[in-house]
Amino acid sequence: MRLTILGCYAATPRTFTNPTSQVLEIQNHLFLIDCGEGTQVQLRKYKIKFSRIKHIFISHLHGDHFFGLPGLISTFMLLGREAELHIHGPKGIKEAITLLLKLGDSWTNYPLVFHELQERTSVLAFEDDKVEVHTIPLDHRIYTNGYLFREKQPARTLDIGAAKRYGIAMEQYAAIKKGADGISVKGETVANQRLTLPPPRAHSYAFCSDTTYKEDIVPIIKGVDLLYHESTFLETESHLCARTKHSTARQAGQIAGLAEAGQLILGHYSTRYKSIELFRQEALGAFPLVELADDGKVFEL
Amino acid sequence: MRLTILGCYAATPRTFTNPTSQVLEIQNHLFLIDCGEGTQVQLRKYKIKFSRIKHIFISHLHGDHFFGLPGLISTFMLLGREAELHIHGPKGIKEAITLLLKLGDSWTNYPLVFHELQERTSVLAFEDDKVEVHTIPLDHRIYTNGYLFREKQPARTLDIGAAKRYGIAMEQYAAIKKGADGISVKGETVANQRLTLPPPRAHSYAFCSDTTYKEDIVPIIKGVDLLYHESTFLETESHLCARTKHSTARQAGQIAGLAEAGQLILGHYSTRYKSIELFRQEALGAFPLVELADDGKVFEL
Repeated sequence: MRLTILGCYAATPRTFTNPTSQVLEIQNHLFLIDCGEGTQVQLRKYKIKFSRIKHIFISHLHGDHFFGLPGLISTFMLLGREAELHIHGPKGIKEAITLLLKLGDSWTNYPLVFHELQERTSVLAFEDDKVEVHTIPLDHRIYTNGYLFREKQPARTLDIGAAKRYGIAMEQYAAIKKGADGISVKGETVANQRLTLPPPRAHSYAFCSDTTYKEDIVPIIKGVDLLYHESTFLETESHLCARTKHSTARQAGQIAGLAEAGQLILGHYSTRYKSIELFRQEALGAFPLVELADDGKVFEL
Repeated sequence: MRLTILGCYAATPRTFTNPTSQVLEIQNHLFLIDCGEGTQVQLRKYKIKFSRIKHIFISHLHGDHFFGLPGLISTFMLLGREAELHIHGPKGIKEAITLLLKLGDSWTNYPLVFHELQERTSVLAFEDDKVEVHTIPLDHRIYTNGYLFREKQPARTLDIGAAKRYGIAMEQYAAIKKGADGISVKGETVANQRLTLPPPRAHSYAFCSDTTYKEDIVPIIKGVDLLYHESTFLETESHLCARTKHSTARQAGQIAGLAEAGQLILGHYSTRYKSIELFRQEALGAFPLVELADDGKVFEL
């Protein structure tokens, strides 16, 4: 699992900072999460093979998370894309994109499939045999979801050495991989656990932005390996959180602690602060494993 | 008059090239012409005091001329703008911007005034006592206008030295500035021409992008000082012009010649070419004074 931060600053794009967008590589998928203005340039800058993106997950319809999407959709068209593109996002996203394409008389030559969300509880947004994506209902000024990306628990793998030691016929291997017990050459039943090895660990990533401090999300993201939680403000500006519906770095740390996350990544920094290191220092007061997102930074699990 | 090119490449934004946008400083106005994705970052990069922009002129609703506008409007809001912002552009632009603001529940705290265009002939888009802006109907895949920016011919200025030599009473100065003749101390009429100096020359700039070769625009832009005419292709790709409704560099030169322009600026280059110098060489075959637009370049008159 590999997370590339394309942009992680709040509000307006500036010369050297970009609004929210991330690419998550997980089990052969390349998922795009949010798409602020300039995302397609960031994708090029960091040499992401972005034609591989088939699913885009949009948290909410504020410009700094969304205004790069029409341009990216148009660019896919100019590049001759043929593969389906799936857009997951709040209700209204289809109307907006459709209107912009209509005004430009620029219909895509590839299928554009919208999956509009309006549920107030966590729902399954995407699933295949390796990965599932759940929404994380957040509390922001407009309807907003975070997303939880979770590798499915893979099956235990066959322990060839053990199978040979017990004299298990090869014809049984497929059934054992699916969980069946084996029958040895002596006719004895051998428990599946003895013939298989533990599966590789399944990883998970939760993207939570934008949101006020909301403990309701803790059960959804419990035990997540990597948690990106917005920290627009420091505690010195905590009075701004109620009106703007954002969080402080300390609150992000508190959520990470309650969720027993493996690691916390901070982002969505207000540009009023001189140094983002201040955010890390503050969050460390509430949670021990804190990393700072920054444009172009990569996190691997 | 000062023209700053913020972006002048066709189609998709790339790491080091930007889609169409320009700033024209003329008679205390700061006009923005087109607004491709990333325009607000370019405005910051080139240190344009963009809060001074009160009028934005959009040629057409293809993404590479327009997708930066929602973000710029939002940024003005975040910066606490209070002054009116006027958007001139094709019919539909109001619906698009309004929908995007509605979805983000992000109404501007300053008045946003739309001036939608659908005329097929040249119309006056803006006028004050110093400047007028006319549309230039172009021929592209969708409804498109260029814009002609013209300083009004200023009045002749009072020649104080001459007025004193003829013994003209100061009470007459205001009337003389408005064109009246003077009366000397001897009671003789002195022609206005003898008491005034020729006015500074009025300048003009025409922006013509995107368009196929269209001689109909020549009477509108006749004698223009500075002509920006798109040259998406070279003649080697002229077969693409009919379908895409773009021009070659040679055709841009031909229009400049017919219009007796003072100078031609080329732009809107297809990114298929290795060097934009090829465009200049080709246009020079049809017109002698050719400059190349490039991101960040400034032209002064």
